[in-house]
Order: sequence, then structure tokens, then C-alpha cells
Amino acid sequence: MNLIEKELYHVEKMIKADVVKEKSIKEIYKYIFKSDGKKIRARLNLISSSINRKKKNRIKLAAIIELLHTATLVHDDVVDDSSFRRGNESVNNIWSNAHGVLIGDYIYSKAFIYMVDVGKKEILKELASATNDISQGELVQLDAINNQEITLTKLKRISYFKTGRLFEAAARTGALLAETKPIYIKNISECAKNIGILFQIKDDLLDYSLSNDIGKPVFQDLKEGKVTYPFFFAYKNADKNTKKTLSNNLGNKKANTKDILRLIQAHDGISKTEDLAKKFHKNAIISAKKIDNLKIQKEMIELAQLAYEREK
Amino acid sequence: MNLIEKELYHVEKMIKADVVKEKSIKEIYKYIFKSDGKKIRARLNLISSSINRKKKNRIKLAAIIELLHTATLVHDDVVDDSSFRRGNESVNNIWSNAHGVLIGDYIYSKAFIYMVDVGKKEILKELASATNDISQGELVQLDAINNQEITLTKLKRISYFKTGRLFEAAARTGALLAETKPIYIKNISECAKNIGILFQIKDDLLDYSLSNDIGKPVFQDLKEGKVTYPFFFAYKNADKNTKKTLSNNLGNKKANTKDILRLIQAHDGISKTEDLAKKFHKNAIISAKKIDNLKIQKEMIELAQLAYEREK
Repeated sequence: MNLIEKELYHVEKMIKADVVKEKSIKEIYKYIFKSDGKKIRARLNLISSSINRKKKNRIKLAAIIELLHTATLVHDDVVDDSSFRRGNESVNNIWSNAHGVLIGDYIYSKAFIYMVDVGKKEILKELASATNDISQGELVQLDAINNQEITLTKLKRISYFKTGRLFEAAARTGALLAETKPIYIKNISECAKNIGILFQIKDDLLDYSLSNDIGKPVFQDLKEGKVTYPFFFAYKNADKNTKKTLSNNLGNKKANTKDILRLIQAHDGISKTEDLAKKFHKNAIISAKKIDNLKIQKEMIELAQLAYEREK
Repeated sequence: MNLIEKELYHVEKMIKADVVKEKSIKEIYKYIFKSDGKKIRARLNLISSSINRKKKNRIKLAAIIELLHTATLVHDDVVDDSSFRRGNESVNNIWSNAHGVLIGDYIYSKAFIYMVDVGKKEILKELASATNDISQGELVQLDAINNQEITLTKLKRISYFKTGRLFEAAARTGALLAETKPIYIKNISECAKNIGILFQIKDDLLDYSLSNDIGKPVFQDLKEGKVTYPFFFAYKNADKNTKKTLSNNLGNKKANTKDILRLIQAHDGISKTEDLAKKFHKNAIISAKKIDNLKIQKEMIELAQLAYEREK
């Protein structure tokens, strides 16, 4: 186990240890944190703050990032009416939408309590801004539902706000905690932002896969009417008739996924999205190489690689 | 217009002025803040901070309190599946649950951005703790649904957490901003807490009324299966058969409200709840009289009176 892994273990321990007495809250809270996610955002935060390992509150800050991320996931499942998360049933599925909304608020405000403990104004500011941007990204995405006319600019903005932004904030707050040079803060934040957007693009790609191994149902975006990159590119390249077929299947819970995937592939939806992923991967590597701490540079490149190659 | 009214006008202006460019978010945001609520919490906050009118950020802090309150209302409407709020259709009704969840998160994180601007650690701490308690109160209330065996202690805890807590935090943060004596902070917070609990008890009472004038549908608690004070006291006093009738109507959307109200009245459900309201009103007055600024003392007593006598 390397150092970051050990630290992540402590992050997990901290999150799991701090539970209220109230039985019903405890039960849902424990359920949410029982399945250990990849914690890629907390990891990013720890890598970033590792430039000054002696600083206090490194574990707590990583826990904050993980809590914030989890709060948005729980709310997302209500928003998307999803029944599964990381291969497990979602809170809104086992309990109810009401429980999903409220436990999300509970986790978010808990993160907020931790932030006040850490007590650095620039960190609070960045996390307040990031969580506000995330909600904006999600709200803009609701507009994108059943909207074939959405622009690439808007899609990129959604990817940045709903995913890239927290990656960026994880890196920036880690660097802020470490009280390091502004150029380090800038480079690692830029790199993290690119990794985050890449992560989202891969997410959109994985949703258009026939595999059952990715831990959640596939073709959800299409079925929910959510226009993402693969659909967007294919639709743009399609002739009038194909456009019609694609439109008819957007938001169709019973869409024939094999046929649709074939259409999307035939109209370069997958390959163009892969090109975009490649581009953000490249940007991530370029910004990583500007980080003048070689160990951290290497770890960021590995993260970019992980995001680029992930199959689930 | 007295000073507090003028200040409340500026609170409203501040909230309404600060909107993102994104058209769809703007539209929902404006809709939420178009109907001017009573702003009793913001008022309380301004009264509390008025002990030192020269302090910066008094308007901003009151806006924060109002934003936090509004965020919880918007989420509450999703949680309770309510179609109306203050006589207007709810966000989840006009748009969707998804919009309700996300715009609630947006407003909450916006309040958080303002808080960082104000930048006082004790204020951040109090508001983080209060918002966490509110979500706990709401979660505990979900347990109370269709639960006739709930205790009076638990009901009081729900009233405190879901309503009293933000009243208390509004007063405490106002006093903290004013940088006044600890005894003032203590007395005004205690008074506000009592007013808040009283406010909630009156809310529970008003739900058991046959009037259509209260700006929202009545008998919602009963129909949602929510055990509140009137039901609780009546159920406790009822014989076996009446208990059965009451139970059968709990959570029954088609309950005969006239008959149920008669049963609840006959078993002292209303009068006992009124006694409880009287008790918290008295406590509020007692703690108000400890406040050694006579102007503020008078304003707090007026607020307690307003909460006690409100008919909507």
C-alpha cells in the first residue's frame, strides 16, 4: 500500500466513524458509504496536498471532497430517477425520493461543518463556488433533455460544471491547504479540470456500450432523453431520415439499443467522442508536465491514464 | 416604513438582483422569489444584529438566512410531494422533482458563497450546524410517518430541528455579527428558539383547520400520514375504537376531514396543542424580557405575538 492508499483508508475511516445516533439516519448513511467507490476526487485532493505532507487537515479535506461528491451522487439519483449506483440499489430506490433529497442535504451540510473546521477562507470560497457550479451544470443538463439542437459548447460546459469543476476544486483546495506557490496551484488545477472533463466524456461513452460489466445499466442517457456526445455527433452527421430515427429513440425507454448503437457508430458518434476524450487526455498530460514536482507529476499522469483507459 | 422594513426591502433586492445568466435557472429562481414571504427569519436576524447597526454585512447575513430557508422549502416540497407553496404552485409541480432538488442545491450553495463573503468563522459554524440539524429533523420526521407510537419528546425534537433551529441560528448569527456581549447572544437565541418552535406548533394547528384562507391546502399532515401534535394528543386520549378510526385515516388522501377534526377536537387534540403553543409563547416572552436592550426586547415580543396569533 503506498502512502496515498493509506491516506485514503483514513479518509474512509473518518467518514464512516462520524455518524449521528439517530437510528434511521445512521442506517442510510452507513448504506451509502458501505460500497467503496474509486474515490478518484479524494485521491486527487491528497495528491495535490501531498506537496506539503506536514500540513494539518489533509485527511479531513479529502473527506470533505468525498462527502460533497457523494451528496451530489445521491441527489443525482433522485434527479435521474436511477435505481442503481455502483452496482447497488440507490437510496431513492430502497427508501424514497424524500430520503434521497434529505440525506443528500445531510451529507452536504456535514461536509460544510468539516470545512468550517479546516477554516481556510480560500478553501471555503472555492468549495462554495464549485458546489454552486455543479448545481448549475446539472440544471443546464435538464434543459438538454430531448433537445437535439444543443450545441457542442453547451455540452462541454455541462461536462465541465457537473464533473470537471469538482476535480478542479479537489486539486485547487489541496494545493491551497499546502500553501504552495501560485504556479503549482494553477498547473495542478488545470490538469485536474482536464482529467475531470475526460472522466465525464468516458462516462458518456461507457453509457453507449453493450457490456453489462460497467456496474450500472447502460443506455440510460438515451432512455432518459439526455443528449450526450455520442448522440450529439451522430445526430449532426446523420441524414434527415436517420435524424428522425435517432430523435424517436431519444427518451424512449424501450429503444432497441443494438440498433441505435449501430446507427450512432455508423455516424461517427463513438469515434468523434473518442477523439474528444483523446484531446482532453492530451491536455491533461500537457498540464501535468508543467507541474514541477516530479512525483506529483507522475501521479497526475497516472490519474489521467486511469480516466482515459477506464472500462467502468 | 420602519427601519427593519427598509432593511428587509434591501434583503429582497439583494436576493433578486443576483441571478446567473443561464436563462432556465434565472426563470425558476425568479419564480421562487417573486412571491414575497413573511421573511420572519430574516427579520429576526436583522432585529438581532440591529444592536450594532454600524456593522457591515447585516443585509447580506439576512439574505443568507432567507436563502437557506428558501432552499429547505423548495426541497420540502419535493419531499412532501406538495403542489402548492404560499398559494403558488411549487417548483416540483410546475417543473419537476429534478428541478426542485437542483434549484434547492443551487440556492443553498449560493447562501454558502455569501457566507464566505461575510467570513466570520462562528457564523459559518452556526449555519453549518443549523443546516445539518434541519436535515436531521426532516429525516426523523420521515420516520414519524404512519407511526402512531411516536413520543412527545420526538415530536418536540422535530419541531426544534426543522423549525426552531433556524430561528435560533438567525438570532445567534445576527448577534455574532454585531459582536455584542455573550449574555445578549444567549438570551436572544433562546427567545428565537422558542418563537420558532411556537411557529411550528401553530403550523401544525393551522393544518387542522377547515378554513381555506391559510394559503395552502389543509389536512396535509394527516393525508401524508404525518403524525403531528393534534393527532398525537387525540390518539393518546382515544379509546380503542377511536384509535382505530384515527389510524385508518392517517395517510388516507380521501379522509373525511370534518369527521376527523371533530374526533380530534373531542379527544383534546386541538386544545392540548393550543396549551403547548401557549407554553412556548410564554417561554418566548420570558426569554425576551431578559434582553437588556428595550427596543429589541419589544420587537422580539411582537414577533412572539405574531407567531402566536397567526392565522396563516
